Amino acid sequence: MNFNPQISNLPIYEAGKPIELVIREFGINPKDIIKLASNENPLGCSPLALEAMEKSIQKANLYPDDSYYELKDSLANLYNINSKNIVIGSGSDQVIEFIMHAKLNPNLAMLCAGITFAMYEIYAKHIGAKIYKTQSHKHDINELKELYNQHKDEIKVIFLCLPNNPLGECLDASDVYEFISSVDKDTLVVIDGAYMEFAKFKDSKKAINPKDIVSLPNAIYLGTFSKAYGLGGMRVGYGIANELIITAISKLRAPFNITTPSLAAAIAAIKDQDFIAQTLKNNLKEMSVYEKFAKDNDIEFIPSYTNFITFIFDNSKNSTQICDNLLKNGIILRNLQSYGLNAIRITIGTSMQNTKVLEALKKEI
Amino acid sequence: MNFNPQISNLPIYEAGKPIELVIREFGINPKDIIKLASNENPLGCSPLALEAMEKSIQKANLYPDDSYYELKDSLANLYNINSKNIVIGSGSDQVIEFIMHAKLNPNLAMLCAGITFAMYEIYAKHIGAKIYKTQSHKHDINELKELYNQHKDEIKVIFLCLPNNPLGECLDASDVYEFISSVDKDTLVVIDGAYMEFAKFKDSKKAINPKDIVSLPNAIYLGTFSKAYGLGGMRVGYGIANELIITAISKLRAPFNITTPSLAAAIAAIKDQDFIAQTLKNNLKEMSVYEKFAKDNDIEFIPSYTNFITFIFDNSKNSTQICDNLLKNGIILRNLQSYGLNAIRITIGTSMQNTKVLEALKKEI
Repeated sequence: MNFNPQISNLPIYEAGKPIELVIREFGINPKDIIKLASNENPLGCSPLALEAMEKSIQKANLYPDDSYYELKDSLANLYNINSKNIVIGSGSDQVIEFIMHAKLNPNLAMLCAGITFAMYEIYAKHIGAKIYKTQSHKHDINELKELYNQHKDEIKVIFLCLPNNPLGECLDASDVYEFISSVDKDTLVVIDGAYMEFAKFKDSKKAINPKDIVSLPNAIYLGTFSKAYGLGGMRVGYGIANELIITAISKLRAPFNITTPSLAAAIAAIKDQDFIAQTLKNNLKEMSVYEKFAKDNDIEFIPSYTNFITFIFDNSKNSTQICDNLLKNGIILRNLQSYGLNAIRITIGTSMQNTKVLEALKKEI
Repeated sequence: MNFNPQISNLPIYEAGKPIELVIREFGINPKDIIKLASNENPLGCSPLALEAMEKSIQKANLYPDDSYYELKDSLANLYNINSKNIVIGSGSDQVIEFIMHAKLNPNLAMLCAGITFAMYEIYAKHIGAKIYKTQSHKHDINELKELYNQHKDEIKVIFLCLPNNPLGECLDASDVYEFISSVDKDTLVVIDGAYMEFAKFKDSKKAINPKDIVSLPNAIYLGTFSKAYGLGGMRVGYGIANELIITAISKLRAPFNITTPSLAAAIAAIKDQDFIAQTLKNNLKEMSVYEKFAKDNDIEFIPSYTNFITFIFDNSKNSTQICDNLLKNGIILRNLQSYGLNAIRITIGTSMQNTKVLEALKKEI
């Protein structure tokens, strides 16, 4: 059986045992496991979303209303835009997939920062498109411009992850808008705002306003319910752009791409902005605990505009070894070795979780 | 902004108001609406699945275990196969999408029956692949073979919807196995078994055994939790094939493609085969009520191996008119006008629902 040529270039997916199962084999009680590896909301989700899901699972046999009428309406109100400027995805990941399939092909290319959300590259590889990445790990506007200008004819999609996962840094909004206007109108600039709620709470200079994106010919804003909204397990995200772009990429959306309880949860979650405020406040307060720990222990860290912090180790330490040792204590963090970094990404947890993680980490460094 | 050429050939998605909202505007109480349009399970889902979802939504902030270890293990036990022969999709729809992207491109083609599940054609159009369909509406093995032999070099994917949605007929398994062996080993035959539980309960000659598919070089079996399992709103499906095929298409699966409660629900639903038995029994019993009605009223119908029945009207009646009138009574059925048929597809409901539908239908014919 032959497959399309780009398939052979994709890594083989090796399904292993769930990490929780592995930890249990170390004799650790499941409820003692601390998982701060996937930037999930440590406070859970809004009680309103939970209540909506409780009702909704009674209708698990029924497909969701595929117009997503109420969800789009709620998002339109939240951002002061029109429902026609919104596409709903199974996570913002799926909107990235739509964009790739709408804009790229094996003769075209995408551009992104040296170290950024891994799915950009993976989706580009799905269709065999070319990938350009800056030498700089973080988003460097000048280097992005330079690389873009060198390959202007090929590059049709540019990803700006704002703030950036897994590093945590964030470009100023003014630089972003200037960058968008400097690229060709046929090149789509994707503003991945998965962690934007955290960035604009910390520093208003980072705030990208979806309403401003809608008026641009060549930009799309991506948002998600997986992070600040605490619905990572429900897989709901969205894209916001001018109607021409939304119409085109919506053509690639299959019906019922989110679940019935996910739809109910997202609609309810938007109503509970108090929960978001509480999440952002806890995050900033607890982030400072990690920053102090890093300073006190001479660990390099990247000032973060997200709900995680990245510790970069010098050659005397090994991030893989540290992660493995923590795992034996029931603590799951994200080793960034696969990104070529001797670093660990830690999701900011609850105060109690963070205390335990830092106690365990202290023993490793 | 330009998009890939195949995008312009795709229909524009016009999101309307939810049909339930429209009906409310006729002054009908939401709880009086009868929706038998989407082949959802009228009995809901297994209480075990419901219980699993109730627990699972407490963890809505957490991504699912992406290995799908336990779900694959349960499916492997159910079908007496290996976990390595299984890929999980967000509905079996998504597995269709993986197959298309893995096998087709604008120079290649897919083949299917004249009237069958609409998503085959839509996904083929997403990538600009060529589409061959038989003149016969139903699956006609000889015509499928003939068309295949005429375009052997192009056709790399063949869909057999067994039993067929939206018509309800089903090929015998022996004919299917013979057909698979007659096509080239590089052409993938997709057995879409979304309604297979209903077909094999009615007639064992229709039973396609996933275990047999695994040993073939060029076939894949698709199953879903949306129909007999009553989890349409949860979006979980799967593909079963030899390891080479599963490895290739799994490369296109993005992480976390199903939700946390969906995973829990599917695992629990497999455990409750009593619920499936009850579903199948109710379906066959109530199907006979529709068949009797059709015979008594001289309506042509297709003997169905699914959980729906298709009534085909003569020129004295108009399916669109009938559906519109029923809508005003709060009854939602599936008009097949968009398939070029003067016909209505009715999901077999509960006894009470079916009585009301047939009473209302009686007035229209």
